[in-house]
Parts: sequence; C-alpha cells; structure tokens
Amino acid sequence: MRIANRIQRLGTETAFAVSAEAAAWAADGHRVFPFHLGDLNLATPSTVIEGANKALAEGKTGYCPNAGIPQLREAVAADISASHGVEYAMENVAVQPGGKPTISKFLHAVMNRGDHVLYPNPGYPIYESQIEYLGGTAVPYGYVEVEDNFDLDFDAIERGIGDKTTILILNDLQNPNGAELSDEQRKRLAELVLKHDLMVLCDEAYFDMRYEGTSTSFVEEPGIAERSVILYTFSKKFAMTGWRLGASIGPKEVIDVIAKLNVNDESCSNHFVQYGGVAGLKGDQTEVKAILTTLQERRDALVDGLNAIEGIKCQRPNATFYLFPNVTAVMERKGFTDYDEFRRAALHATGLSFCTRLHFGRALEGETQRYIRFAYSGIDVADIEEAMAGFKTWCES
Amino acid sequence: MRIANRIQRLGTETAFAVSAEAAAWAADGHRVFPFHLGDLNLATPSTVIEGANKALAEGKTGYCPNAGIPQLREAVAADISASHGVEYAMENVAVQPGGKPTISKFLHAVMNRGDHVLYPNPGYPIYESQIEYLGGTAVPYGYVEVEDNFDLDFDAIERGIGDKTTILILNDLQNPNGAELSDEQRKRLAELVLKHDLMVLCDEAYFDMRYEGTSTSFVEEPGIAERSVILYTFSKKFAMTGWRLGASIGPKEVIDVIAKLNVNDESCSNHFVQYGGVAGLKGDQTEVKAILTTLQERRDALVDGLNAIEGIKCQRPNATFYLFPNVTAVMERKGFTDYDEFRRAALHATGLSFCTRLHFGRALEGETQRYIRFAYSGIDVADIEEAMAGFKTWCES
Repeated sequence: MRIANRIQRLGTETAFAVSAEAAAWAADGHRVFPFHLGDLNLATPSTVIEGANKALAEGKTGYCPNAGIPQLREAVAADISASHGVEYAMENVAVQPGGKPTISKFLHAVMNRGDHVLYPNPGYPIYESQIEYLGGTAVPYGYVEVEDNFDLDFDAIERGIGDKTTILILNDLQNPNGAELSDEQRKRLAELVLKHDLMVLCDEAYFDMRYEGTSTSFVEEPGIAERSVILYTFSKKFAMTGWRLGASIGPKEVIDVIAKLNVNDESCSNHFVQYGGVAGLKGDQTEVKAILTTLQERRDALVDGLNAIEGIKCQRPNATFYLFPNVTAVMERKGFTDYDEFRRAALHATGLSFCTRLHFGRALEGETQRYIRFAYSGIDVADIEEAMAGFKTWCES
Repeated sequence: MRIANRIQRLGTETAFAVSAEAAAWAADGHRVFPFHLGDLNLATPSTVIEGANKALAEGKTGYCPNAGIPQLREAVAADISASHGVEYAMENVAVQPGGKPTISKFLHAVMNRGDHVLYPNPGYPIYESQIEYLGGTAVPYGYVEVEDNFDLDFDAIERGIGDKTTILILNDLQNPNGAELSDEQRKRLAELVLKHDLMVLCDEAYFDMRYEGTSTSFVEEPGIAERSVILYTFSKKFAMTGWRLGASIGPKEVIDVIAKLNVNDESCSNHFVQYGGVAGLKGDQTEVKAILTTLQERRDALVDGLNAIEGIKCQRPNATFYLFPNVTAVMERKGFTDYDEFRRAALHATGLSFCTRLHFGRALEGETQRYIRFAYSGIDVADIEEAMAGFKTWCES
C-alpha cells in the first residue's frame, strides 16, 4: 500500500492514547476517575432533542444547502452578533459537522504553503497538525503563569513574527489552561495583528462556557473582525459533542470559500440536526444554564481539591471546563522527570486519568514548570472529591 | 481578504446552478419538474429512524471513536463481505459523514502531488475537483455508447496511463450514465490495474440501487481488493442523503490513515445516527426494498417517456437512479448547439429541469454525441408522465 508523503506531516490527538490506557486499566477491574476526557457526561437540553426529533419526523432527511439551512445560519449570526458587538449576517456563517472542521477549512482557505502561522502551545494539538500537514510552518507561542491567569507570552509572539508570518491562531478562553485575555492584552494583540497584516483564527469553542463575568471576543477590537474567522461550536454549550454541529463565522469572501470546501468534503451537515441547533439557540435556556451550574460546582470541587495538595498550585479560571495545575513541586518531590511516567504512576496508584502538558504540544525551549490537565466535564462532584482524597494521599506520600 | 492559491484549483458541483435556476423559475410561479436533483423524495425507513431515536434517547450524544462505533463498522463489514465475496472486518471500515468524504480522504491518503489519476468523464465532478485541488493531474476517460450500455473506453484508459499514473477512479454503476462493467470488462480492467500497479477508488454509491440482476464489485477480481478503497454510503439505499452517513472500506493500512484524517477533520461522525445505520442494516428490509420498487417504476415511466420522443434514445440501466439520454438529434433539429441554451429553453418551455453532460465534466476531444442527465429519485411517476408529455410536444415541435 502506497501512502502519500503528506501523511508523514499529519499529527493527531495523542490524548487518545490516554483514553486507551484508562480503558485498559478499567477493563482490568480497577476504578478509574476520568479527568482526561474533554467530553461531557451531561444530557443535551431537551429543546435541542425535541427540535431535531420534530425535523426528523417532518422528513428533513434530504440534502440541505452546503453552508447550512438559512434558519440556523441566521440564528448563529444573531447569537454571535449579540455577544460580540459586531454585526454578522447569514452570509457570514458556514455550518459544518462540528467546530473542529473550522481549523482545517480555515487553513485550507487562507494559508499558503510556506506561510508561517503562530499558534498556542500548550494548545489544541490539531492546530499544529493541520498547519504542518498543509505545508505551513507552525510557530508556537506560550503562556506565562501569573497570579490568577496564564498570560499570552507577547515576547514569544513578537519574536515569532517574521516576513512569512500571515496567520495567528488564538484560542481565548483556552484549552488546556483556561487563559483569558484582558482588555489591555486584546488591544496590544490587535496592534500586533494589524501592524503585521495577519489573519486570525479565533477558536471560541469555550466562549459560552463561562461561570463568572462576561466573555469578550478578540473580534471586538477595531479592524479585527474583517480579518478573522471564528470557530463556533454547539458541542460544549449544549452538551452536543457527539452530534457534530458547529460553524465558521467571518467575512463573506472566506465563508464562501469554506462553503465551497463543504461541497467537496461532505456536501452538507446533517439536515435535521441543524433544526435541533436552531431550537437550542431560540428555545428556553434553563437547561443550558443548568449545564454551567453543574460544571461550576465541579470546577470548585476540583480546584479546592487540587490546591489542598502540598506541591500543587491550581488557577480557578472563569471559563472552559479544564484546569491546568502546576505540579512541578510534586513531580520533583516524588522523583519524576518524565511526564508519562508520572501520569501512568498516578493512574495505577490512584485511578486518576489525566493528560499532561505534552498532549498539548512539545515543551518549549526554557520551559521549567510542569503542568497536567484535568477536564471536569465528564465526572461528577462526588467522584471528584473521592479522586482528590486519593490523589492527595499519593502526591504527599 | 487573502485567499490561498490552492483555492484556484478547487472545483465544485456546477449542478447547484441548475437547482438555483429551477428554484427561481418556480418562485416566478411556474410549474417545475425536478429531474436535476440526485436527492430522494422518499422517507428514510422506519428501522433507521427508530434506531437513531433510541440511541438519542439513551444519550448517545457524546464523542465516539474516530473510525466509527464498533457495531457499525462490523455491520458494514458484514454487509460488504456478503455482497462482494471478499472478507472485510471492522478494521477495514472507517465511518464518515457521508460517502463523499471518501473521495477527498482517499486522495489525501494515497495520492502524491504530481501523480496522474484516471477518472471518469462524464462523471461525478468532485473527482476532478479533488485530484486537481490536491496537486494531482486529472486524466479523464470516457464511455462508448453501445446497444444496451455505456462501455468503458478502454482505449482512452490505455492511452491515459503513463509513468506518473498511480490511481484509477472507477464508478461502476455510474453517475450519470448508469454504466456497468461486464465480467469480461472487469477482468480486462483488473489486468491493466495490476500491470501498471495502480491503486483504485471504487465509488460504489449505487451498488445496492439495483432493479434487476446482481451487482458485482471490481474488488472481486484477484489482487484488486488489496489495492482498493470502496466508497460506501447509506444515502441512497436508505434514503438518508441528509443524514450524512457513509464509510471508506479497504486495506487496514489506508483505513488507519483515513481514521487519522477523521481525527483532524471532524473528530467523529454523529454518534446516534450511527446506531440508525446499524438498525437499517440489521433490521427488516421491507421498506428498503420498497424504495427500489418505487424507483424502478419511475425508471420505466421515464425511459418509456423519453424513448417515445422522436430524436431521443435512452438506455434502461439496471442500476442507479439516473438516465443519460442521447439528445443529439433533438438538439440538431431544434437548432441548439449550446447545452445550456437547450437546457434553459426546455425549462422555460416545459418546466423540465435537468442537468447536461457538461455538469459532469468538460466535453472530451472528438465527442460528437449530446447527452442530458435525468435523475428520477425526486419525482413521482404521475409527474414524470406529465413532464414527458410536455417534453415530447416541445422536442418534436
């Protein structure tokens, strides 16, 4: 079998190996606490289910437009316009099977081979994979941990921008570290983007997964919306990860290209599921808010549990459903220098399954602090508390 | 807005323009007979709907494996093994949102830039689009109309094979012309494929859309399954075009690559829809067979109607839901030399909306016969008969 050369450049989500190890450990009869999953163990709101069921019963089972049904494109545009302070219309929205396709389709649409693309590291591993797969050069930028946030490493961004840099990927409200730009930082970043004439992928998968305060989009900065595509997903807010429904939102010219890619790639997104999305956006929001309340309780239980452990320091981010505790002291005390050895030892000793910093990119030069990532979207408070008791004992022993 | 250079090479389905013209004509208050649509106006079987609904009610709304749920991969492997005389297992199947993604993912996985790829013309336009988009050279081969079939133009295939040719795309049971390989032709084609060490994309979207006789796959030829990926779809057989469910089936090595592309492109296919697919394959087949019966009645009404028109000659293919009538004499008699003018005149005079040969690729050198394509999947027998009466009057006037 001949495999194309380009496949050598294709990355993946190495976190799947963690899932496999956790499943194997559970299959051997051990208790496993699943903190590795960025999935939700919560039900999709009934508004969405009823909307989809109604459309299915009405026979919405044939092809629909490549860019999505008009009702959903309009509803998404209205949702984003309301929360972003920027007017988007139907023609600014291309519906796709999930938020993830936006990463690949955006890069297909605007990145030339040889272009340099700034991307967050630690960050969602598909950015790096798709930049390199499509023949670009992936230039990482990191974060600097401060008292109550992970701040963008502006020095790294400025160092990383060269003649060939054309694109910035920004994941504000960040996976894995929950980082959030301040007003001042958004302004500073916008100046850089405009000065260097960059295009921007705003991955806002967690924009609505917020417990306190209000999310502000980078596209609110003057001049940024015109050069940005927003990754929008129903997966998190509506607990719809397995439904595969999301959208790309941006200037009509690039959205038209993305819709043309849709024609080539998958024709359209599931027809009746799109009606579920419309119903979710327009219907009663009680269940949507309940998802957030549940997640906030889990966040607090997990942050408190982690910070009660000698040698662990954990932020309490206002958004996402991830924590990125600093475990440098624990790893040192217990004599671990290898992330995977630490992770595996914890799994076997305590049943806790989590990802490490390395599942979100190669460590950057000069990186001295050690981090692991906990997702609390797939585990209940009682299990979190039980897990933390065992983890504390093990970490402190 | 900067758009990437590669987008200049991206094609589309020009048939969408026909849909738009038909919709505009209907919106102006005219009766339209929709023969341009490759969609079905038939209900998805209740087995599928109930299977999906049950899974949705049971909360199958989270992520599932990138290559599909094991139950569906196994059911598809069993279905294909039974009909193809070749043993396929779960690891030979990658589930995707529709059959179409197989075209792009197969070429991503095995075609290098600069490779030459043989593809059918007239044929599904996404082959040419994706070959050229991914930096290959698209080398068309045509068909020769014989008494009761369109035969592969073997001379064109042999002429088209050169040092750089690595892939053959075959759409047996063909869109648009309903062509079907004979046993002898399959053997002859297999010899060519083996002699030139080609890989094969077997687009079998219409394998089960068969009214008489039995479909035979090209992969039954010795040595072919090992170098072939089958495009499999639920869209046609189960009237599920808008559900987006299909699969790539082939050697594990390339299926693993396609699953890795799934991780990057869309994570996974809709979770509960996959249970609908399992239920469709394993459940009662009464409604599935009823779809075929309905389509066969339409085929016969349409073939009879077309052949009753002076100057039209139409085959009666045993499979697909398309007809590709030869309209050379009618176009000549009515003084049309341009396909689009003929098509538009027919729409405005009779309400018939259909595609022409040019929606399935550029005309080949030396091509003298004129064809149009009728889909009968979206129109009932009574409307077909009414449409044919009007078309006959217009064509013969």
